[in-house]
Amino acid sequence: MSKYLLYSMTYEEAEEYLSKHDMVILPIGSHEQHGPANPLGTDFLIADALAKEAAKRTGVAALPPIPFGVSFHHMHFPGTITIAERVLEEYVLEVLKSLAKWGVKKVLIINGHGGNLYPLMIASRRAREELGIKAYIYQWWTSSREKLAELFEPEERGHAAAAETSLNMYLNEQWVRKDRLKDERPKKHELENKIITFTYTKEKSRSGVFGKQLNATPEKGKTLFDTLIEDLVKIIEKI
Amino acid sequence: MSKYLLYSMTYEEAEEYLSKHDMVILPIGSHEQHGPANPLGTDFLIADALAKEAAKRTGVAALPPIPFGVSFHHMHFPGTITIAERVLEEYVLEVLKSLAKWGVKKVLIINGHGGNLYPLMIASRRAREELGIKAYIYQWWTSSREKLAELFEPEERGHAAAAETSLNMYLNEQWVRKDRLKDERPKKHELENKIITFTYTKEKSRSGVFGKQLNATPEKGKTLFDTLIEDLVKIIEKI
Amino acid sequence: MSKYLLYSMTYEEAEEYLSKHDMVILPIGSHEQHGPANPLGTDFLIADALAKEAAKRTGVAALPPIPFGVSFHHMHFPGTITIAERVLEEYVLEVLKSLAKWGVKKVLIINGHGGNLYPLMIASRRAREELGIKAYIYQWWTSSREKLAELFEPEERGHAAAAETSLNMYLNEQWVRKDRLKDERPKKHELENKIITFTYTKEKSRSGVFGKQLNATPEKGKTLFDTLIEDLVKIIEKI
Amino acid sequence: MSKYLLYSMTYEEAEEYLSKHDMVILPIGSHEQHGPANPLGTDFLIADALAKEAAKRTGVAALPPIPFGVSFHHMHFPGTITIAERVLEEYVLEVLKSLAKWGVKKVLIINGHGGNLYPLMIASRRAREELGIKAYIYQWWTSSREKLAELFEPEERGHAAAAETSLNMYLNEQWVRKDRLKDERPKKHELENKIITFTYTKEKSRSGVFGKQLNATPEKGKTLFDTLIEDLVKIIEKI
Amino acid sequence: MSKYLLYSMTYEEAEEYLSKHDMVILPIGSHEQHGPANPLGTDFLIADALAKEAAKRTGVAALPPIPFGVSFHHMHFPGTITIAERVLEEYVLEVLKSLAKWGVKKVLIINGHGGNLYPLMIASRRAREELGIKAYIYQWWTSSREKLAELFEPEERGHAAAAETSLNMYLNEQWVRKDRLKDERPKKHELENKIITFTYTKEKSRSGVFGKQLNATPEKGKTLFDTLIEDLVKIIEKI
Amino acid sequence: MSKYLLYSMTYEEAEEYLSKHDMVILPIGSHEQHGPANPLGTDFLIADALAKEAAKRTGVAALPPIPFGVSFHHMHFPGTITIAERVLEEYVLEVLKSLAKWGVKKVLIINGHGGNLYPLMIASRRAREELGIKAYIYQWWTSSREKLAELFEPEERGHAAAAETSLNMYLNEQWVRKDRLKDERPKKHELENKIITFTYTKEKSRSGVFGKQLNATPEKGKTLFDTLIEDLVKIIEKI
Repeated sequence: MSKYLLYSMTYEEAEEYLSKHDMVILPIGSHEQHGPANPLGTDFLIADALAKEAAKRTGVAALPPIPFGVSFHHMHFPGTITIAERVLEEYVLEVLKSLAKWGVKKVLIINGHGGNLYPLMIASRRAREELGIKAYIYQWWTSSREKLAELFEPEERGHAAAAETSLNMYLNEQWVRKDRLKDERPKKHELENKIITFTYTKEKSRSGVFGKQLNATPEKGKTLFDTLIEDLVKIIEKI
Repeated sequence: MSKYLLYSMTYEEAEEYLSKHDMVILPIGSHEQHGPANPLGTDFLIADALAKEAAKRTGVAALPPIPFGVSFHHMHFPGTITIAERVLEEYVLEVLKSLAKWGVKKVLIINGHGGNLYPLMIASRRAREELGIKAYIYQWWTSSREKLAELFEPEERGHAAAAETSLNMYLNEQWVRKDRLKDERPKKHELENKIITFTYTKEKSRSGVFGKQLNATPEKGKTLFDTLIEDLVKIIEKI
Repeated sequence: MSKYLLYSMTYEEAEEYLSKHDMVILPIGSHEQHGPANPLGTDFLIADALAKEAAKRTGVAALPPIPFGVSFHHMHFPGTITIAERVLEEYVLEVLKSLAKWGVKKVLIINGHGGNLYPLMIASRRAREELGIKAYIYQWWTSSREKLAELFEPEERGHAAAAETSLNMYLNEQWVRKDRLKDERPKKHELENKIITFTYTKEKSRSGVFGKQLNATPEKGKTLFDTLIEDLVKIIEKI
Repeated sequence: MSKYLLYSMTYEEAEEYLSKHDMVILPIGSHEQHGPANPLGTDFLIADALAKEAAKRTGVAALPPIPFGVSFHHMHFPGTITIAERVLEEYVLEVLKSLAKWGVKKVLIINGHGGNLYPLMIASRRAREELGIKAYIYQWWTSSREKLAELFEPEERGHAAAAETSLNMYLNEQWVRKDRLKDERPKKHELENKIITFTYTKEKSRSGVFGKQLNATPEKGKTLFDTLIEDLVKIIEKI
Repeated sequence: MSKYLLYSMTYEEAEEYLSKHDMVILPIGSHEQHGPANPLGTDFLIADALAKEAAKRTGVAALPPIPFGVSFHHMHFPGTITIAERVLEEYVLEVLKSLAKWGVKKVLIINGHGGNLYPLMIASRRAREELGIKAYIYQWWTSSREKLAELFEPEERGHAAAAETSLNMYLNEQWVRKDRLKDERPKKHELENKIITFTYTKEKSRSGVFGKQLNATPEKGKTLFDTLIEDLVKIIEKI
Repeated sequence: MSKYLLYSMTYEEAEEYLSKHDMVILPIGSHEQHGPANPLGTDFLIADALAKEAAKRTGVAALPPIPFGVSFHHMHFPGTITIAERVLEEYVLEVLKSLAKWGVKKVLIINGHGGNLYPLMIASRRAREELGIKAYIYQWWTSSREKLAELFEPEERGHAAAAETSLNMYLNEQWVRKDRLKDERPKKHELENKIITFTYTKEKSRSGVFGKQLNATPEKGKTLFDTLIEDLVKIIEKI
């Protein structure tokens, strides 16, 4: 069978798939500001693109993306949509619960948005304890940190900065406003590394961009995407 | 601005959109069995296709689809994923809450799956009372009943039957298993119209198809889709 | 044993009943406006009267009525009391849970108020999945639609209209204000059959009556009640 | 107006009542074992009888009774129904919330069952803090303790003992099984007055009766009922 | 092993303890006003002191105190902290759940604050039903009532009165403001023994003291503490 | 006033404190395995010691420690107690809610246990949005990372390793089992830095120690504690 998206399969095809595999891929993102140049859907679009391509290469089926995530910190930028942590945790857990019923033992969550990490980690804990399955969280900016560091400067790796924007230029070029690219050095709290606290994006960045964005190109996006996929394929094989 | 998907807009473009419109479209579906011929994603794929096309025609922006819904009754068919009513209600309400913050007053929910109706209606009630906004629910099989009745026989309008399958053939032809089309007359409980009760699909249909599916064609799908869109555009204009 | 109300039995009598029957009847209503002529308790009073009479005739024991239901749409009319959907769902489910412990397999819920349907349906789903029992919902205006249609015109069948008022005149004559009977044609939203949305009663009817009420008589009430009971007895026997 | 039950009033009558009064009476009971002689509904039946009579005498309107309460400790006796504390608290609070909307400032809860006290007290706290209204809880066995002590011995005042049974004989004579009256001295835990802990009724009483029941008579029931009503009327006037 | 505090043990020592004992002690208090002379922590400090000493004497291990409890009624006095009943219930139940996993069958909760009783009783019920363990609640002012009555007058036994203040003087002398001792007769509601309702402390006592406090001495505190411990040790042995 | 613990103050003293300060310190820890040498209470004991000493030096008042935290990963080691994330989040938020009522604007949470971070971060978000106050989280192993790195090797800084054990030796020497010190190199998952997932401690460390513990001394504990306090005092001053 050549289908690699679970939602493209009939239930009979899914049955066959599930009899041979105990793993699926679940992309999740957010609908939030990514600076004046990037579309609001950046995070779920990238997560979905990674999930689809990884599924195609490995034969591990991908689910459709969960589009809305935890974005309270961006709620001063129009169009941002945020889900309470608890609600996202429950929504994801419901999906995991159904998958567990079908014999899935491992779910690779491709998380396109850092703000989702807390509820996803709680869901991962509950999946292990309540469902007896493992949920692994992949985030391209941490999971593939070394590769990323070879391609982009530190200040190009922040939220909506050159790395992310390049991915967008490669994947969704028609939606990127290249005329609105912008560099902005985020304000640093002097206790930034000393204490952890919730802060609003607007307190750190006027434009919503964290770092340098002007160097973004579709070519870098392609290189990065290919690198990420390579990494992801290896990870999937190891899991 | 030619963008009609909210997630394709930057936050500045969204700001502009939201200053001119007080309405958005939210598609929602399910990931569940649709017989041996249709893909699991049928409901959210159709809802999303309707949302995108209606958005394109009317200029009322569409959101990305919420892919997983309430599908407990189908949980004997592999690959089906179900969300508890309460969790779906909360997830949708979180989206509506963010939209309300941005000045949206009307949300047209394009619901691709009947099983979602209860939590959506509760969300609609809460949206009115807690957020002061209106959530309208459009379901193609009820909202466009008359048009549908002109094109398909009663037994062609059930779950996964010819009408829905034709839409799939038109929208996602590559995923439809035409070799697996099937007619099945669902078992009728003798109290069917007298009492309301939760029943499992497998108690009524062995294949998961409710009615006649063999007559489905992409052409009928196109005709139906065009008709639905026409209807939908009128509804949006009236709202 | 001649007792047919579970609450009139001692626990020893209940034990005997439960050893012979696996079914009980649970009436549920609301405390809400029914126009200027009908009492606030209309829905639970009718549900309770139906439950008691059906119990008497069939020997299937009835529980006491749950008096308050989901009535948000009527909250502009004094004295109306509303319960959040989720709370009603939980309250009903607790009752079902206890019944399941006593070996009850089937609960016939006589629902006197349409607004309760969503939470009752969710409770019915959960009863099946979490408790392994079946909850059937009977609503006189839908379950006995054909019989009703023989006795009353369409516009006499709405909320607080002639059919319901006649039942009240027969069952609770002393509480009906015959001097305040009223006909009111409810406002129709032009998208009424196209979209589903939460609306307040006052947006459709100034008096709270939906349709013709003036033709109500106790005699019609008696005929209707007898018809409903006949229907209900048959349904109970079939279940 | 001579109506004294809120549910017997039309909304216009309720409006008039609410413009003149800021208080209502809410009876609440349980559906649980009361020994081999008393009906399961004892607690809500007594609460409702007290509420109705007090309403009649004072003109303060009574609501219909909430029939199911917290009865986990009796769940070894068939027919008992129990509601989780939290669910009862929420159900009652929803009623109070609606009443607060109608300008009610004081709710006299006539609680027929001690097991409901914890959630009712929490509801009373929340009513004050969240709704700004006062909920007073009346329990005949504590609120009218002195009067009760004049009429019954200590061992006649326990659960299902002579006092309660006498009330039943007076109020619901046809449902009392006089042939099954029984005295049973409940087992005392030696730490009974030292520590508080949840215990099951069956651990203390085989029959479910706590104390002497044989002396119960309808006459004593009438005397007690009249005394309670006298007390209740005074309390209502003072509130 | 001479350790008697569970938190002072290593997990290996705990394992040994748990292989020999099926009981632990859990102190819980509050952080609330106790008049102008007593520290805010009075309740958890006394509960913890009792727990530690009882543990030392009996070898039944004590847990660390849960410091914050249900104190809504005192929220007009600065520094008071209150926890919603439901949250405290859940927090305690989580502790009991873990203990149940380790084979603990009996938990003696030393409750230093009456306001915690409702959620603790619900937790005790749930512990029995959901975890199969017993939670016993000890409160020094009720559990040792007789002993207390020998040492203090009725008006010296109220909240923050001489008995409690004496305990503080003995246990935490450095924190008691002897210059601020105060007698205050609490206002009595004329329905005080007739009805139960939530009331704020400030409605009854201006200073927050209920009764006579001036007679408090450290010596009386020592005598009371020794008496309580004696009682507590006996209770633990009986359990 | 020389009191620096909020719970040692009377409400009048608290009032005075709160009129001059808008900040308090809240220590929180866990009750979980820390290898065969350290007591179960390690995390809350260290958090409390840091809180008290920092309060003493700065005059910013400390609250009593919340002793039980999120420790699911350690639940194979006897005596460990775990609180569900959601329950801890709610418990902490209740405390913050009360503090907000008293005019507190900043709460420094001294978190002694990494497993608490997710719910604390959610509480920090909610405190900002729902209460309008800031909750800062200090964790000695991250907040004072540089200082720590000067004193201990990387493998001495893991859970229950030399750094933490030294703190214990300094603060709670009598409870440390020096005869049971142990070095254990934790198993590394080959995807450790690539993916994030919930894992049980026992899957990585047989003894529960992560790294080198044998080098721990009370002297190093004192030096570390002094360093941490120095850091903490600076942080408090900057906040």
